[in-house]
Amino acid sequence: MPAVDLFSFVTRVRERAPLVHCLTNLVVTNFTANVLLALGAAPAMVVAREEVDEFAPIASALSVNLGTLDVPQTRAIRAAVEAANGAGKPWVLDPVAVGPLAFRTEFAFDLLDFKPAVIRGNASEIISLSGGAASARGVDSTAATDAALDAAQVLALKTQAVVAVTGATDYVTDGKAVIALSNGTPLMTRVTGVGCALSATVAAFVGTASGRDEFRDATVAAIAYSTIAGELAARDAALPGSFAVAYLDRLASLDRATFDKTLVQRDVVSG
Amino acid sequence: MPAVDLFSFVTRVRERAPLVHCLTNLVVTNFTANVLLALGAAPAMVVAREEVDEFAPIASALSVNLGTLDVPQTRAIRAAVEAANGAGKPWVLDPVAVGPLAFRTEFAFDLLDFKPAVIRGNASEIISLSGGAASARGVDSTAATDAALDAAQVLALKTQAVVAVTGATDYVTDGKAVIALSNGTPLMTRVTGVGCALSATVAAFVGTASGRDEFRDATVAAIAYSTIAGELAARDAALPGSFAVAYLDRLASLDRATFDKTLVQRDVVSG
Amino acid sequence: MPAVDLFSFVTRVRERAPLVHCLTNLVVTNFTANVLLALGAAPAMVVAREEVDEFAPIASALSVNLGTLDVPQTRAIRAAVEAANGAGKPWVLDPVAVGPLAFRTEFAFDLLDFKPAVIRGNASEIISLSGGAASARGVDSTAATDAALDAAQVLALKTQAVVAVTGATDYVTDGKAVIALSNGTPLMTRVTGVGCALSATVAAFVGTASGRDEFRDATVAAIAYSTIAGELAARDAALPGSFAVAYLDRLASLDRATFDKTLVQRDVVSG
Repeated sequence: MPAVDLFSFVTRVRERAPLVHCLTNLVVTNFTANVLLALGAAPAMVVAREEVDEFAPIASALSVNLGTLDVPQTRAIRAAVEAANGAGKPWVLDPVAVGPLAFRTEFAFDLLDFKPAVIRGNASEIISLSGGAASARGVDSTAATDAALDAAQVLALKTQAVVAVTGATDYVTDGKAVIALSNGTPLMTRVTGVGCALSATVAAFVGTASGRDEFRDATVAAIAYSTIAGELAARDAALPGSFAVAYLDRLASLDRATFDKTLVQRDVVSG
Repeated sequence: MPAVDLFSFVTRVRERAPLVHCLTNLVVTNFTANVLLALGAAPAMVVAREEVDEFAPIASALSVNLGTLDVPQTRAIRAAVEAANGAGKPWVLDPVAVGPLAFRTEFAFDLLDFKPAVIRGNASEIISLSGGAASARGVDSTAATDAALDAAQVLALKTQAVVAVTGATDYVTDGKAVIALSNGTPLMTRVTGVGCALSATVAAFVGTASGRDEFRDATVAAIAYSTIAGELAARDAALPGSFAVAYLDRLASLDRATFDKTLVQRDVVSG
Repeated sequence: MPAVDLFSFVTRVRERAPLVHCLTNLVVTNFTANVLLALGAAPAMVVAREEVDEFAPIASALSVNLGTLDVPQTRAIRAAVEAANGAGKPWVLDPVAVGPLAFRTEFAFDLLDFKPAVIRGNASEIISLSGGAASARGVDSTAATDAALDAAQVLALKTQAVVAVTGATDYVTDGKAVIALSNGTPLMTRVTGVGCALSATVAAFVGTASGRDEFRDATVAAIAYSTIAGELAARDAALPGSFAVAYLDRLASLDRATFDKTLVQRDVVSG
């Protein structure tokens, strides 16, 4: 695969300020909105079944997160993904805690028919969604990401989505190419919503892209940008309260030279 | 208009700790509560249709924000504004994203019949609510505030509410007097909920006031206090994560001398 | 009562990372999750009636908070406490604003039949829940904690729960022993959700304990740990925005020596 200018997607986000429609969980709404604003994107949490149809054509992309799914939200999400598809807008699925909980797991499988552009989850979630048996205890990932690499490729081929498995090493695949990213810090797991906000960040990035190859590259760029910001923030602050603040500051200020210098990326399989 | 001692409203809030009943959106509940606590007010997010009647007489004021409106919330809001009116408590309307979305726009127009004491929005929202055609893409304001000044006056005369249009310059009008405020910082747009929390702050301030003239002055004081705190916080922190922290600290500590020295205010039309 | 090694519960939480199922209010979800993560526990906000049965056996403990109760949440909470009891997992009740609001007050009384392991509230809430008449104006406590000590003992004897009344002085009782704790800082009342997150912290601690004596000691340990972290954070930061950040940092880093040195505890009644 030829070298991709990943930072060009960051520049696009800052210049175009993509409006990201988020249907996400109750825990992370605020942090997700602040992450998107720090990036230069515009968050919009329009949640009612009555409004999502009308909002999809206005937004650049849709981010769906199942963290606190309930019945009214299933209706809003279904309407929103249909409206996004109708308007030709990409959407991202974050299948939080899919696997051990039947209600959300069935719903997540249903959503796979609605053509997500990207699916981003931890190893347990991606293994479960690909049809395998993962041992998860909810939002925690109990599997290392490389154990989910085969599952990610299977899921990408089955759904035609770009699939990202994130953890200590992050993998992004379109079913052919596999890119591995190794930036980040364990502190990103000590602040709630970092992973959920990353899915919304992927949505912001793919909201400036078109076609499957660009969706893949935009996903790589979003994860690289976020994990590099985290890695640098961990140099500013070693404890989770101040780390969360430093992370937002780094997301708002990370420049190309620092990004390129810090990036640790390799092609596992060249598509 | 004679000079008003704006800081006297700040002192009232700190001394009386007005209890502000907030029916707001899912993104900003936490930040709004922290802003109110920093000011010396007391937040109360009582959300159920079953409880709002009982709570209105206990609260000093009600703050209504339509950011993540859904059907159950429309019922709670309608009951809450009726109860507030019944108990003689002022309420503030923040018509988030009214204009492009029919469901909330119709609801917001219905609410105008329930005598809000203050309406605070961005230019697009105020233009839409006054019956004009604004081009908004949701929560973003795409119009400068001076373009909404006529609309604000029309809306104030029609509803008998004090109307505030906030942006780079903030305008407050009761349909006769128009006061312009020019404090603040663009960083206030990079943290989610600053505008929404400002509406709750207006509710805290009008919760210590009575009569339309005092509601107007209390609204001016609330906006002046918040934007000056923001302007000073931008001197403490240049990036959005640390700015949000500094903003809360400034809200909790801004004194009269600094307030008076920093205030940039002018009468556009003297009522 | 023999001296209890309170810090041993902190060590347990850090080593076992108890998964705490939280059904809490809309204002504090994010902060509660960050507090639990800072402690080394794992938060899980599974909210749907459809999912709580399945989740209870996976979690180590359940934390129930009535702050923004509505009808759907009453159904989820009732199912969750039954499932927790069925799975032998302890649960903690935080009866926010019980007393002045009939809907939640009736519901809270119903919940007493479902054997909470711990009830934590402010003085007004505990007095109300014990059947007395408190004068509360919602989330604020208007009574000093020592005025609620008798009520706490009555409630503990009636329900067989450990009861904690928190305020300037915190009391924990199982109906026989009464332990008083005097750490903390008034800044803890200037950040929303500190009290609510404390209840989830108690759940994390009792999630590593078994039997009523250990539940009592774990509750004392949770409150001591949180208030000492607050007291130390107040040395780092004197204003509420930066205090909230410092509090999370202290929760993540407080060590045994500092804990033991700072603890102010006395037995009021030795059980």
